[in-house]
Amino acid sequence: MKAFVMKEIGRVGLLDKPTPRPGPLDAIVRTAAALICTSDSHTVAGGIGPREDLTLGHEAVGTVHEVGSEVRDFRPGDRVLVGAITPDWGDAASQNGFPSQSGGPLGGFKFANSKDGVFAEYFHVNHADANLAKIPDGVSDEAAVYCADMLSTGFMGAEHGDIPMGGTVAVLAQGPVGLMATAGARLLGAGLVIGVESVPARQKLARAYGADEIVDFTKEDVVERVLELTGGQGVDTAIEALGADATFQTAVKVVKPGGTVSNVGYYGEGEFVRIPRVEWGVGMADKTIASGLCPGGRLRMERLLRMLETKRVDPTRMTTHRFSFDEMERAFEVADKKLEDVVKVLITF
Amino acid sequence: MKAFVMKEIGRVGLLDKPTPRPGPLDAIVRTAAALICTSDSHTVAGGIGPREDLTLGHEAVGTVHEVGSEVRDFRPGDRVLVGAITPDWGDAASQNGFPSQSGGPLGGFKFANSKDGVFAEYFHVNHADANLAKIPDGVSDEAAVYCADMLSTGFMGAEHGDIPMGGTVAVLAQGPVGLMATAGARLLGAGLVIGVESVPARQKLARAYGADEIVDFTKEDVVERVLELTGGQGVDTAIEALGADATFQTAVKVVKPGGTVSNVGYYGEGEFVRIPRVEWGVGMADKTIASGLCPGGRLRMERLLRMLETKRVDPTRMTTHRFSFDEMERAFEVADKKLEDVVKVLITF
Amino acid sequence: MKAFVMKEIGRVGLLDKPTPRPGPLDAIVRTAAALICTSDSHTVAGGIGPREDLTLGHEAVGTVHEVGSEVRDFRPGDRVLVGAITPDWGDAASQNGFPSQSGGPLGGFKFANSKDGVFAEYFHVNHADANLAKIPDGVSDEAAVYCADMLSTGFMGAEHGDIPMGGTVAVLAQGPVGLMATAGARLLGAGLVIGVESVPARQKLARAYGADEIVDFTKEDVVERVLELTGGQGVDTAIEALGADATFQTAVKVVKPGGTVSNVGYYGEGEFVRIPRVEWGVGMADKTIASGLCPGGRLRMERLLRMLETKRVDPTRMTTHRFSFDEMERAFEVADKKLEDVVKVLITF
Amino acid sequence: MKAFVMKEIGRVGLLDKPTPRPGPLDAIVRTAAALICTSDSHTVAGGIGPREDLTLGHEAVGTVHEVGSEVRDFRPGDRVLVGAITPDWGDAASQNGFPSQSGGPLGGFKFANSKDGVFAEYFHVNHADANLAKIPDGVSDEAAVYCADMLSTGFMGAEHGDIPMGGTVAVLAQGPVGLMATAGARLLGAGLVIGVESVPARQKLARAYGADEIVDFTKEDVVERVLELTGGQGVDTAIEALGADATFQTAVKVVKPGGTVSNVGYYGEGEFVRIPRVEWGVGMADKTIASGLCPGGRLRMERLLRMLETKRVDPTRMTTHRFSFDEMERAFEVADKKLEDVVKVLITF
Repeated sequence: MKAFVMKEIGRVGLLDKPTPRPGPLDAIVRTAAALICTSDSHTVAGGIGPREDLTLGHEAVGTVHEVGSEVRDFRPGDRVLVGAITPDWGDAASQNGFPSQSGGPLGGFKFANSKDGVFAEYFHVNHADANLAKIPDGVSDEAAVYCADMLSTGFMGAEHGDIPMGGTVAVLAQGPVGLMATAGARLLGAGLVIGVESVPARQKLARAYGADEIVDFTKEDVVERVLELTGGQGVDTAIEALGADATFQTAVKVVKPGGTVSNVGYYGEGEFVRIPRVEWGVGMADKTIASGLCPGGRLRMERLLRMLETKRVDPTRMTTHRFSFDEMERAFEVADKKLEDVVKVLITF
Repeated sequence: MKAFVMKEIGRVGLLDKPTPRPGPLDAIVRTAAALICTSDSHTVAGGIGPREDLTLGHEAVGTVHEVGSEVRDFRPGDRVLVGAITPDWGDAASQNGFPSQSGGPLGGFKFANSKDGVFAEYFHVNHADANLAKIPDGVSDEAAVYCADMLSTGFMGAEHGDIPMGGTVAVLAQGPVGLMATAGARLLGAGLVIGVESVPARQKLARAYGADEIVDFTKEDVVERVLELTGGQGVDTAIEALGADATFQTAVKVVKPGGTVSNVGYYGEGEFVRIPRVEWGVGMADKTIASGLCPGGRLRMERLLRMLETKRVDPTRMTTHRFSFDEMERAFEVADKKLEDVVKVLITF
Repeated sequence: MKAFVMKEIGRVGLLDKPTPRPGPLDAIVRTAAALICTSDSHTVAGGIGPREDLTLGHEAVGTVHEVGSEVRDFRPGDRVLVGAITPDWGDAASQNGFPSQSGGPLGGFKFANSKDGVFAEYFHVNHADANLAKIPDGVSDEAAVYCADMLSTGFMGAEHGDIPMGGTVAVLAQGPVGLMATAGARLLGAGLVIGVESVPARQKLARAYGADEIVDFTKEDVVERVLELTGGQGVDTAIEALGADATFQTAVKVVKPGGTVSNVGYYGEGEFVRIPRVEWGVGMADKTIASGLCPGGRLRMERLLRMLETKRVDPTRMTTHRFSFDEMERAFEVADKKLEDVVKVLITF
Repeated sequence: MKAFVMKEIGRVGLLDKPTPRPGPLDAIVRTAAALICTSDSHTVAGGIGPREDLTLGHEAVGTVHEVGSEVRDFRPGDRVLVGAITPDWGDAASQNGFPSQSGGPLGGFKFANSKDGVFAEYFHVNHADANLAKIPDGVSDEAAVYCADMLSTGFMGAEHGDIPMGGTVAVLAQGPVGLMATAGARLLGAGLVIGVESVPARQKLARAYGADEIVDFTKEDVVERVLELTGGQGVDTAIEALGADATFQTAVKVVKPGGTVSNVGYYGEGEFVRIPRVEWGVGMADKTIASGLCPGGRLRMERLLRMLETKRVDPTRMTTHRFSFDEMERAFEVADKKLEDVVKVLITF
């Protein structure tokens, strides 16, 4: 089968690989659609260290091709979604309520990390009964594939934010995860959602996904503006959706005492992420900093798919580019170099 | 001033009363609009015991008429909302996180209970800085007055339900509080909201406020139908919004193990409310039963008003009848006897 | 091998059975010590329906005898504890945070229910890596076996009770689970623990496990006395540890508005468990009713074993009787008929 | 009356001041005993900016001297404790569940900050009914005065730590607040408490208050040792009780994915408190950072006093020095310069 791999740090390309086979609890999925993620670029740039001929990609839907002997609920031909994170259920971290951390820190993140990813004609799913979800008839492949990471991660940003009903939320950065955090905050009862973003196309998407106000950090001081919009109080919840030290600091500054900074950003560089001491109330302002990795698993995926089925959100507005798997190299280039105002690139197989 | 009172159990009417005066922390509000609540009927029927010439009503907006010497944030002329529940902040129950229970069980419920209510030209508000909220310019009196009880109580039903994002919710009964519980469930991220109701006009409102499915208990078995709609699992959250033993039992039955029954119904009769033993998992199914009284206070009201300001919900669709305060006797009759498919009756002053 | 079985409703005895074999993820444990539980009596009495030659028992420790091909962390000879509840990790209920409900209501309760129990020379454990725990050197078999159900269930009663630090707790009934709820409340920061019990030997144990006050329901009115002990407020948390409608009602009555009734009792009869309407605040007193089934799993067991290792509690004071497995019929009779002031009966193999 | 004041930054001394008078909701307390806190030194050093003749001190007990006209529950002669933090109940932050932040960030911290403190023969208490607590007969002044800040703050460190029953906790630094965090972790069900401290006398106290293990950071690597003590997993909860950037970093490092860093330390210098990026899981390890200011209020104080009354903890072991108020200058010098292995200095009036 064909696979799109990271040959070494900084170099990608298509490669022939053997079709994977399932263990007793596993499944092999024939890929139908996939999305390219900024994490794929991080990985190629060396973010998780050197890898050789590792298949990239962790956002995909497809049809079940083969199942292991112990799989009960899925059969070849089933149209399925798999989360970007495929936990080891039963592991200590899973039993502790943190399945994304099963097998060690971020250990649920297996695709294109500790095993081959989904940018291939077929891919392997561990513990299929617990990590696959059937896609309802009314939900398209293109919509469903957004659940794997974009909805799950973005919504998590809102869920960890402890938003009171009618509360105020600032979402810092409106990339695809930030946009889904914006949608998530709106879906979880925020009374005022402030999207921070400078790119006009993303500002427009932010409004479409539920931002009531947009703050352009290139034109105004974010902290000042957020305080102004909240009567000088600061927001109940600030969601960091970029992964930059400066943005994280802003998040701590705009949140009120007793509020929550919910981090979804990935920090790729530097020794530290820094908390501004005074605005953190010298450690005493009852400001909480939450963080997390994209939740995975069948139940999570089923719940997200239900949100699509009942029309709570339409993630396909984020698809700016479409390519076939044959055009994968060009597709990756567009995503990697952020060409042509790209938001998300959809690959069909 | 004129006041609409409960003269004794079963008898109401207009009466002249002296205009109230504020203590040092209090305010007097000149009433602009009010809503009649089913609780007013319960009270007149003797639900809280005998009362003599007690002014009825607990849902109102108006303008500040006079403030006590220690009031800082409000001035005569301010357009204000007051919650149906006006807690004693600082009381043990408030410090414990349950201000509605300040001063004893349900003690925050003062209007038309432990003191005169709001169906009068003027009414008294204790601890004005903590219990009043300014109404934003873009929000009408008619919309704002729904926050006092209908939104606060209905939304509480959803908030206590611990709804997972994309989870399933059944709301049992679609009276005005049930409708706001339906809206609340939708606003808090439910992926599927099932409204149980038999009256066509209320079914229609339920759909407008966010119910994805309607179950008519006069035509089908509610438990069976809810299980069918949830793939045999039961719902994550069942909200009892009627206050009937049979409905409460249904709530326990339709909720899945690990799910939550959130009670907002007021139980007016009988010695017991009964939990069905087997469906409660013989006490071991991890089903939680939450309950509560309408949250009050300035912050709550400000947050609910923000939901109106940013167009999250339009409660005025529930106004089926409008009367002036002069027509109060007829207005009360319509509400009390549930004439003409009444949902909510608005009184203007 | 020899097994102690329920031959049919009302009849027990020893029987020869084949030694079980493990599936790929499972283990077979050679039993070293076991405890008889009141649930065993319920089962024999028909509480879970008819069974034929079902091996009884769900509280045991032993040494690993054989493991399946996929088991990673356990080897023959390891000294192990297994929880009474052995969840299917990865199941929907487990992913939802309620592993005890995996596979359906109370579905994690497999031993002596949906499969053979532990009163046998060998027993089978599903998903060994997730459901077994190694016993630390400093912890005796006799102490460890209490973790399987008594500590896990009793402590859960306290954990579900949402006890504020320095808060007040009433534990209704001081059988072995109630005693561990008493210990649990004390261990979780309660400032006042009131044990309700009439049997002198159990009152004495209750004091030893941390009850500050004892209320004898045969001598005084429990509700009155608890209110008196809490300055008229009621307790923050009431733990029902008996499983009787009347006791449940008392629990609702003694808890303050905003407080929690935590149920650990098993209700074996009647169509309903009844909530007293008025004392429940007519549905509006912010009183929460929590319930649950004994938590299982490796992490839970490891944490409980740590509590023994670091001397937080000594459950062996509850052992009133000791028998060898040969004497199982007599042992069961003592436990079943509650002879000789029995609290717990230990069986050694 | 005599008061011990900060004359200006760096200079303290006794001064005559008029005895304060109460507003309608307030009380004046005649001081009986007080404790000197490290915060007093911070304040004198300029930590909260310049002050002129500000009375120092925020930990005190005494007898009620005079009450305002609206005070209901207290009378002259009552023996009382007041929390270091005296919130404005009813304020937005209080209604939001964070009374310590009422009136602005850290706004509940009034004594020796926004008004005169308690190192005086008499001191003023705002909202007496909500901020005073009667001291039970069996509790000494010396024990009670520890509740004002030491128990409330230290226990908060444990409460914010979300410690699972039987979980593992590291408490970094064993000063008086750290010691009470150690006691708090033990009282809240930790299965293993690791105290980090190098001073022998404090190590000994740490053991007495419940530390199972002591790690001396001058002799071994804290991160390495904590991982070793937790089987390589890290702790569930790390409590920072010093207020140093390096210690905070250690806290993030020793906590497992999914665990909580609970901050009680006050950070007096530097622009930032720094999170180590990699050990924070690049923002994705589900590690939560909680923070807070000493909880105050009558209910909190009553619950802490109950812990003393029922002998849960004896804080008086921390009293290393005793002085009369006449000797206040020498007393302050001992505390300020940390002479003679001082832990806490008690002042009697």
